[in-house]
Amino acid sequence: MADDRRFMLRALELARKGEGRVSPNPPVGCVVAKDGAIVGEGWHDGPGTDHAEAMALKAAGAKARGATVYVTLEPCNHHGRTPPCVDAILKSGADAVVYAVADPNPLAAGGAARLKAEGVDVRAGVCETQARALLRFWLHSLKSPRPYVIAKFATSLDGKIATPGGESKWITGPLARERAHGLRRSVDAVLVGADTVIADDPALTVRLPEVAPVQPLRVVVDSKGRTPPGALVYDRGGRGAVLATTAAAPKARRAAYEELGVDVLVLPADGKGRVDIDELLRTLRKRGLCSVLVEGGGAVLGSFFDGGLIDEVCAFVAPVIIGGAGRTPVAGAGAARLADATRLAEVETERLGPDLMIRGLVRKPQERACSPAS
Amino acid sequence: MADDRRFMLRALELARKGEGRVSPNPPVGCVVAKDGAIVGEGWHDGPGTDHAEAMALKAAGAKARGATVYVTLEPCNHHGRTPPCVDAILKSGADAVVYAVADPNPLAAGGAARLKAEGVDVRAGVCETQARALLRFWLHSLKSPRPYVIAKFATSLDGKIATPGGESKWITGPLARERAHGLRRSVDAVLVGADTVIADDPALTVRLPEVAPVQPLRVVVDSKGRTPPGALVYDRGGRGAVLATTAAAPKARRAAYEELGVDVLVLPADGKGRVDIDELLRTLRKRGLCSVLVEGGGAVLGSFFDGGLIDEVCAFVAPVIIGGAGRTPVAGAGAARLADATRLAEVETERLGPDLMIRGLVRKPQERACSPAS
Repeated sequence: MADDRRFMLRALELARKGEGRVSPNPPVGCVVAKDGAIVGEGWHDGPGTDHAEAMALKAAGAKARGATVYVTLEPCNHHGRTPPCVDAILKSGADAVVYAVADPNPLAAGGAARLKAEGVDVRAGVCETQARALLRFWLHSLKSPRPYVIAKFATSLDGKIATPGGESKWITGPLARERAHGLRRSVDAVLVGADTVIADDPALTVRLPEVAPVQPLRVVVDSKGRTPPGALVYDRGGRGAVLATTAAAPKARRAAYEELGVDVLVLPADGKGRVDIDELLRTLRKRGLCSVLVEGGGAVLGSFFDGGLIDEVCAFVAPVIIGGAGRTPVAGAGAARLADATRLAEVETERLGPDLMIRGLVRKPQERACSPAS
Repeated sequence: MADDRRFMLRALELARKGEGRVSPNPPVGCVVAKDGAIVGEGWHDGPGTDHAEAMALKAAGAKARGATVYVTLEPCNHHGRTPPCVDAILKSGADAVVYAVADPNPLAAGGAARLKAEGVDVRAGVCETQARALLRFWLHSLKSPRPYVIAKFATSLDGKIATPGGESKWITGPLARERAHGLRRSVDAVLVGADTVIADDPALTVRLPEVAPVQPLRVVVDSKGRTPPGALVYDRGGRGAVLATTAAAPKARRAAYEELGVDVLVLPADGKGRVDIDELLRTLRKRGLCSVLVEGGGAVLGSFFDGGLIDEVCAFVAPVIIGGAGRTPVAGAGAARLADATRLAEVETERLGPDLMIRGLVRKPQERACSPAS
């Protein structure tokens, strides 16, 4: 029905309010509707706060009786930090529940079955594609010991991220850069390598025309402690910064970062003395992070691709030819054969002013399920 | 009127039959229509043969009386190798003429004015955008001493044209490659550098599922005569091959190419001992060529971009990440500053299976008019 779609799209809009701050929980939105009108709205705003259904039903109050509950994820049926949403729905007197995506989390699932058993009309799969896209970080976290990793770069049409003279600001235009800030806003952490900090001194903050946007954790991979402690990325504020380094970083240097409030992670080194990226990702996941945006430079993105650790690619391509022997967006060892290169699926393109955004998912073998988030 | 558009689109379709073999003349198509039906069709098939209008009016015969003539370029009003088309139209008894693009060639222009003076109903500008695209090589030739030059390359999303191990076949899929053959078919010459011949041994022929497609002239830029005379590009047949070289190529080697029927052009060298590309382009234009497709490699494309000699870029981008320190599509000196990089306008994108085609025009300062083609 057209109403189902309309209310679910609004529920998705509400769910997005939680993006970037609900991990390890999923971003979920909920609309309670009766006689074609919305009588309650809710969203999950972070661990320990109400689930979307609870918030929307509270808003609806007595009007929930005989209403339909639209929710982007199947209502949970378990006691976590908050009581099961199924109980709240049954108590509210709502007649029907429409959800977008079934909950694959074995701890929380079974909500739909219980609602049906109690005589509630349940429909599933409305706007499922859009909801899956919004839930992809969380869905990934249920089956992987690592966060969902997005590789992001901006390049000229001939594959350069800077001129031979090193100029890189800005290859893409304002609309593409704004979109890149939107990407930062949607993830739990933004990660760059030491060379990028030294060359560009990025703040890695979300700069968008909204009041106090959610800020991601900033992560710097700097195996030897080469980045200046005065770099913008180590500024206090926002969600803080993590420095991922190895025992090769001088102790005094590590103390200097810590004095600034930086969280210094001393991790094992790989064969080349660089931070073991896989270990770093597992550590971030253990801390509850579900998504990481890797913004470069080429060496760091190369390490991630070489390790098969990228789940999604988001490339901004400017219609400009730079030429010369400038740096390219992804270095590392690279794929020896074309058959070993990282192929993207479900590729989408979008025009952003003069520039193009090209996004796609990396197809990887299914990972072994691990303990779900709560 | 809908009919105007329908008949002009058919005339454009006919014009395309001449693409790649009418230079230095323009590809033109013509439809003679009466009472909503086509009574004659024609196209220009090359220098010395009938113009499109003459062919279509001959086909229409007596049915041309009272008919409308649809032609993609304003009918000419001058005696070249064939009589003025305006005379043929007036003699045919056609009532009306509809054309897409006005003839900017001062020698041939004035057709519309004369037709109007003789009482013929004249309308202009129908499907002008499409017709201009088809006529762009010829329109360029009227004001430039060089052919229209298209840079073509196929690259991974991270800007590599080969793996670190050198594998490049094939980064893009069959649909993109077929489109690349269509590009070859539309131009007068296809050009590559010596390294590409040595590494890939390309035939540079048009391989399309049609009977005897038009073959472009094959041009190899090889300053020192390093390419093996046995290379596929020097095969007899098609429209032949040109070797652009300098006095640095050994005389015996030059004789070996000539024995194979290759047209050896000994050109001035630039400061680095390489063929002076600008001289090469002027020479090709003097020989009547209006369009050249430069297919690489990176060094040759770099020379063209460094010299500001590219008019259009056609990039095929595969949604794949190769990584490593592989070659990029455009090398050369490159743009020192971003402000000096080659910016594309009127960018169009098209999905070709999994791949993307990104095309755009290079904005250049207007060139001084030179003597028009005939």
